[in-house]
Amino acid sequence: MGLKALDYETMNENVKKVQYAVRGELYLRASELQKEGKKYMKSTVCWGSMHFHIIFTNVGNPQALGQKPLTFPRQVVALCQAPFLLDDPNVGLIFPADAIARAKHYLSLTSGGLGAYSDSRGIPGVRKEVAEFIERRDGYPSDPELIFLTDGASKGVMQILNCIIRGQGDGVLVPVPQYPLYSATISLFGGSLVPYYLEETANWGLDVNNLRESVAQARFKGITVRAMVIINPGNPTGQCLSEANLREILNFCYQENLVLLGDEVYQQNIYQDERPFISSRKVLMDMGPPISKDVQLVSFHTVSKGYWGECGQRGGYFEMTNIPPKTVDEIYKIASISLSPNVPAQIFMGLMVNPLKPGDVSYDQFVRESKGILESLRRRARIMTDGFNSCKNVVCNFTEGAMYSFPQLRLPPKAIEAAKQAGKVPDVFYCLKLLEATGISTVPGSGFGQKEGVFHLRTTILPAEEDMPEIMSSFKKFNDEFMAQYEDNWNRSRM
Amino acid sequence: MGLKALDYETMNENVKKVQYAVRGELYLRASELQKEGKKYMKSTVCWGSMHFHIIFTNVGNPQALGQKPLTFPRQVVALCQAPFLLDDPNVGLIFPADAIARAKHYLSLTSGGLGAYSDSRGIPGVRKEVAEFIERRDGYPSDPELIFLTDGASKGVMQILNCIIRGQGDGVLVPVPQYPLYSATISLFGGSLVPYYLEETANWGLDVNNLRESVAQARFKGITVRAMVIINPGNPTGQCLSEANLREILNFCYQENLVLLGDEVYQQNIYQDERPFISSRKVLMDMGPPISKDVQLVSFHTVSKGYWGECGQRGGYFEMTNIPPKTVDEIYKIASISLSPNVPAQIFMGLMVNPLKPGDVSYDQFVRESKGILESLRRRARIMTDGFNSCKNVVCNFTEGAMYSFPQLRLPPKAIEAAKQAGKVPDVFYCLKLLEATGISTVPGSGFGQKEGVFHLRTTILPAEEDMPEIMSSFKKFNDEFMAQYEDNWNRSRM
Repeated sequence: MGLKALDYETMNENVKKVQYAVRGELYLRASELQKEGKKYMKSTVCWGSMHFHIIFTNVGNPQALGQKPLTFPRQVVALCQAPFLLDDPNVGLIFPADAIARAKHYLSLTSGGLGAYSDSRGIPGVRKEVAEFIERRDGYPSDPELIFLTDGASKGVMQILNCIIRGQGDGVLVPVPQYPLYSATISLFGGSLVPYYLEETANWGLDVNNLRESVAQARFKGITVRAMVIINPGNPTGQCLSEANLREILNFCYQENLVLLGDEVYQQNIYQDERPFISSRKVLMDMGPPISKDVQLVSFHTVSKGYWGECGQRGGYFEMTNIPPKTVDEIYKIASISLSPNVPAQIFMGLMVNPLKPGDVSYDQFVRESKGILESLRRRARIMTDGFNSCKNVVCNFTEGAMYSFPQLRLPPKAIEAAKQAGKVPDVFYCLKLLEATGISTVPGSGFGQKEGVFHLRTTILPAEEDMPEIMSSFKKFNDEFMAQYEDNWNRSRM
Repeated sequence: MGLKALDYETMNENVKKVQYAVRGELYLRASELQKEGKKYMKSTVCWGSMHFHIIFTNVGNPQALGQKPLTFPRQVVALCQAPFLLDDPNVGLIFPADAIARAKHYLSLTSGGLGAYSDSRGIPGVRKEVAEFIERRDGYPSDPELIFLTDGASKGVMQILNCIIRGQGDGVLVPVPQYPLYSATISLFGGSLVPYYLEETANWGLDVNNLRESVAQARFKGITVRAMVIINPGNPTGQCLSEANLREILNFCYQENLVLLGDEVYQQNIYQDERPFISSRKVLMDMGPPISKDVQLVSFHTVSKGYWGECGQRGGYFEMTNIPPKTVDEIYKIASISLSPNVPAQIFMGLMVNPLKPGDVSYDQFVRESKGILESLRRRARIMTDGFNSCKNVVCNFTEGAMYSFPQLRLPPKAIEAAKQAGKVPDVFYCLKLLEATGISTVPGSGFGQKEGVFHLRTTILPAEEDMPEIMSSFKKFNDEFMAQYEDNWNRSRM
């Protein structure tokens, strides 16, 4: 018989072209090592009854590395899952009154509880809570009809890019380094990624001249640049964009007629006070007409990141600004094909944007838990970047926000040569060796894009704080030995 | 300024081409009427504190129409959401011991509870439970590595079609009438739908000669037919395919080198005993080599349908048979882009495929609740098809399975003329009038496809059983008046 539609040779080429390093070669190898039961650290990181022999820092997945969920939202969603408990005379023995009240509130917003499909845009009452959150955050009103809830932010990004990309001639400006969701989705939809480089020496800032150059080069190749992605705070780079930078970007989008996709999923993860998070939408509104009435902006948020870290629930939203109603209808129609985002995560989103207030029974516990996580993340960001900077041939910008460190690895020529011999990209070679030696599962910088001849790795700052010193010293030991092993030629060639 | 990427005029044409009638014009009008607070029925259908003035029978969404969730799975998932309750000395006062044990079991299968991303294919331990379920059902072993959990079956269907469809020259055989997920997804991915007609007079059976003809016609147009969809039990048609029919289909796929997509989401919804559900996979395995080793089959299932009706949770799986490992890797990679299906629904899937056993504390309640729902659905299937058959110019096959009735409407020529005047497709015209007059929100047959000049509507059999007599008499009153109003010409023209 001949080839069939699901034989590799005849599959959709766009599917085959996709690369997704966050769960790529390194992750697969780490999963194998975990299956084999390999042990690395003297003490193992524990959660419940699980023991982690491999430290999975490849993906921002806080609860997989021991972060406990916030109690209050879990109580509310548990009650929504089991609404019959609300009639149980004993419910008050294990659930606080405000959780019970909130569960009743959210159930009243649904049409049939968590087991019924919601509207394909999400529950209207929750979208209203999101709009109120945005209004409080930015100081400008937001319209719930322009907010769609999604199964995590990634799904929202994919929906919007699907509307934008018509074919290979359509380009999307994406920062390099970038989160590979963007490169993967653009490949999948058959579009063209137009890279613009972030400046590592300027703390991963964005130079608008680079943008102009990228667009000019793309046009020269016959590509119509239709949209621009920013990730703020940055992934994998961890920087917070300044207001001035955001203004330049919005001005650029205005001049070039670009849709701006604002990936703002790390807006709650800020580890310094000098540069707070500012939303693209606030800056856009501040700029006033004509720009504020013209630039098409879609902003993304999630319950996965922040200090909530509720990744497994898969909840997100996007908000549309200056998108024409007919387009909104089309996006609604496409969302309808899969009927509705999962309803439990919609409740999590409501709880995240409409948190407890002082005076609520559970308020103090909620604040204590939230602060505990955020302050620990702030300390871990410091421990990690300091740790990297103490290593041979490693330099790392401070993680201002998000949940990643992205140290540069100055690999000696002999290491690059050895990688070539092994048929590996140099940073993949380094990261595989690191994994085998220490159990630390990272993502090579080549998975995010980087300038020619420059190498990085990305790690989350999420391992438990008490394990950090051991992880960093294990890293340092491996790195310094690796660098020494390949370095003699390197030093000589530099003299 | 010129047009932007999210202006309607310049959007991806494939997005604009998509039609999705289940949440189309009728649904939008029904939502408007609900917002306006229109009341129709003497008694209103209630769930919790919600009052339904509009009877939404447009989508199979049981819990939105008052079906109560099964208690046991909700208890387990509530406990998984609130794992701290497992340490609470009072937990036994409101949760039974088997729910507590099950929650511990599922938490032990995760890496960090419900808040952590799982593997992109789903939790390995749950996929193992699915494989065991399939083995018990079919009598053939199933491999957990070939089972992927998804956010509902729709998302799985979309993933697989994305791998199959390379462009307009690729065709997928889809039954007509069909569930519009298929037509919508094929449009979205820029492929070609190749229709094959189900025979209404043969109880919506499938004639393989029709299939051959469809393929021949498509080839004549230069289309490469790559896959075939079957929906069994049928949506919107409600039939169960016989074993003989499934053999013919698999033989046809073997001869024509087609991937078979088996949409089997209604496998638990069977309302007669003569024709039980048989899975495509069992029939394929029964056929033996070479066919059983050759035909590429992907089968879909869900927690949304069945008597569980947990639509809002968005849980599903697909199982792959005879799909080469390299292709499985590609599908895994694409699944990775959105990191993981939502974890709570994975637990629901585990519970559904691995239910309580006799002797478990909650077993009797679980069986009582399950039987109650299934037996009531069986009665409602009968009430509804009998009701339709008692109406003027309406004929309806019995609903053997799934959750829909799909009556044929023999519209008089004057009604067709009036629809034309109103700028509507005739069955859309009828369904809009029905909605305005009775509050019953259905989907016109044209949304599913039907033979030229033949008209239908689809309604779910899900309204509460006690409301059924009133709904059907309200329908009959509307229909018989509608038919009488437009009928005089009709009768004369037939004489």
